Amino acid sequence: MVYEERRKELFERSESDCVVLINIEGSSRPSLLYFTGFSGTFATLVLSKKGEWVLTDPRYTEQAKKQTGMEVVEYRGGKKFTEFLADFLRDLECEEIGIEKSRVSLSLFEELSKNVKASFKSVDEVIRKMRMVKDEGEIEKIRKAIEIAEKAFMDMLDFVEAGRTEKEVAAYLEYRMKVHGAEKASFDTIIASGERSALPHGVASDKVIREGDIIVVDFGCVYDGYVSDITRMVSIGDPKEEHVKIHEIVVKAQDRAIENAKPGMKGSEIDALARDYIESMGYGREFGHGLGHGIGIEVHEGPRISKMSEDVIEEGMVFTVEPGIYLEGRFGVRVEEDVVMRKDGVEVLTKLNRGIFVKK
Amino acid sequence: MVYEERRKELFERSESDCVVLINIEGSSRPSLLYFTGFSGTFATLVLSKKGEWVLTDPRYTEQAKKQTGMEVVEYRGGKKFTEFLADFLRDLECEEIGIEKSRVSLSLFEELSKNVKASFKSVDEVIRKMRMVKDEGEIEKIRKAIEIAEKAFMDMLDFVEAGRTEKEVAAYLEYRMKVHGAEKASFDTIIASGERSALPHGVASDKVIREGDIIVVDFGCVYDGYVSDITRMVSIGDPKEEHVKIHEIVVKAQDRAIENAKPGMKGSEIDALARDYIESMGYGREFGHGLGHGIGIEVHEGPRISKMSEDVIEEGMVFTVEPGIYLEGRFGVRVEEDVVMRKDGVEVLTKLNRGIFVKK
Repeated sequence: MVYEERRKELFERSESDCVVLINIEGSSRPSLLYFTGFSGTFATLVLSKKGEWVLTDPRYTEQAKKQTGMEVVEYRGGKKFTEFLADFLRDLECEEIGIEKSRVSLSLFEELSKNVKASFKSVDEVIRKMRMVKDEGEIEKIRKAIEIAEKAFMDMLDFVEAGRTEKEVAAYLEYRMKVHGAEKASFDTIIASGERSALPHGVASDKVIREGDIIVVDFGCVYDGYVSDITRMVSIGDPKEEHVKIHEIVVKAQDRAIENAKPGMKGSEIDALARDYIESMGYGREFGHGLGHGIGIEVHEGPRISKMSEDVIEEGMVFTVEPGIYLEGRFGVRVEEDVVMRKDGVEVLTKLNRGIFVKK
Repeated sequence: MVYEERRKELFERSESDCVVLINIEGSSRPSLLYFTGFSGTFATLVLSKKGEWVLTDPRYTEQAKKQTGMEVVEYRGGKKFTEFLADFLRDLECEEIGIEKSRVSLSLFEELSKNVKASFKSVDEVIRKMRMVKDEGEIEKIRKAIEIAEKAFMDMLDFVEAGRTEKEVAAYLEYRMKVHGAEKASFDTIIASGERSALPHGVASDKVIREGDIIVVDFGCVYDGYVSDITRMVSIGDPKEEHVKIHEIVVKAQDRAIENAKPGMKGSEIDALARDYIESMGYGREFGHGLGHGIGIEVHEGPRISKMSEDVIEEGMVFTVEPGIYLEGRFGVRVEEDVVMRKDGVEVLTKLNRGIFVKK
């Protein structure tokens, strides 16, 4: 039902007489998942006034029928898929076709447009806007992805110690997420220890973790197609005074954003709630990225929560709140919560304590 | 040195006065790695008669300088990256620009071509052909990726037992690959047990492994940018007679291909070496995929080893040899080796025994 309604809305908002979303090797996979429930790597969704179909190949026919409940058309090779699709579209006699221009490769588009007499328009922004607002079913999946990641984080805390490499710790954390039910990690886990914590994107390296290191742990997983994205700080031995001081500023900045964000505000306004505080404490230049980003089927999707963001934050939008301060060559601190906007303000979905986790 | 030579060859073979390879969020990542050594997620390589440059943003400036040794141009925001790139290209006064049409999105191309007066041509096939032939440095990395995966496979053998789910076993195998030094798994590990072994792409599920199950284990990892891709069979308890019989046919088919493949043969001819034998044993219809595919930076790249492949197999090409027989609703068997073509025939890079591994 929910998929049907989404397709109806997309078709109407596209203002085209046809919408074609093509997932070849993952290109429009998020859209296929969002509009049909299909999770495989090869399928094309066609919406038109004459009907709607999923086109896939024999590997996925059964799966597509089961997951989408839609009419499935089988592509059995013989000619190129783009030619097969062009033939199919010609029969629909569409004049204007909505496609995801940011997810279609130029070569695929050239092959298709050579064989189809229609104009093409972008439906990227329509889809981005639709996906930004989550329904309760989606929020539940994100909640579960958070819960799994948090359990794995606690397992990782038992495992991490001086002498292990960042990569080992990341591997263990990702392993534990899967054991607790994740499909996979939602991105390459960041374990950035000691000086490396000053790198905003310090993907786990061969660096050995030492006594006294402070560690940025940025992690998340996929559950039933939806992701989590969390950051916490871990200290090997008691944290130094400067670590605690910077950490307090970061958490306070986060509190300001979480307590004062309201529906109807722009992304830039929510960003400013945290940024203004960090600037007032003298670390504006050391907070070099946006406050957050939407999460859902992808780990970076709308809305943007950043200095320049014009996105208006509405009820049902799920996004991260992740202020950070990075002192080059010394250390960095980031704390990241996942939140959903409700009628009166945000509900925080992450449950882990935000303090520095001390491992002795 | 090797990167410089590759860039020179690409530029010459492109027959353009400019080549632009754009890696935004991974799009042309393999090419950036191949032609410059840069491994991050955001960089653009520009080759021209006037010079060559890597364009990246401040997150990656240091890394790009270190990894590429090239002149790095920093994009510091303010305008869209495509506009920044267009300005840069305008100064080079190129008439024809080679791009990777299969890796550039339509929206990016539209933004770029709006602002650059030049014609664009595809260099996809030139790059595909170059990457097919590996040098010894690349082969060593693949060898290492194989060695790591094989060690992890042996760890997994200790771990697998009746009562565990396929997903648990896959998670453990992927974890052990990372512990042994892998960057990550090169694809979602396939653990297909019992009836599920009849699925050629049975990515690990929640199915519980039972006594008497035969299991397809298809796995591999990334080491220093290069991948391995291996398949072995595991039996929980002694394998049944029919499992042994089908396994023997598959291994013999593989032997025929490995022993008789020679440089200069087409991919289709090597495919036929194994396929003809399987057909002669009465299982032609049950071997529904190609015999193999190239591996290197990506887990599927040139050459194709399949019925229709016109690729001529030359010295230095690295590819999989993976015949399989799938008996729907019952079980399936696949065994996959990674090989490199040498002057007189293939050298097998995988070292694991090809017999059915029996876990009691």
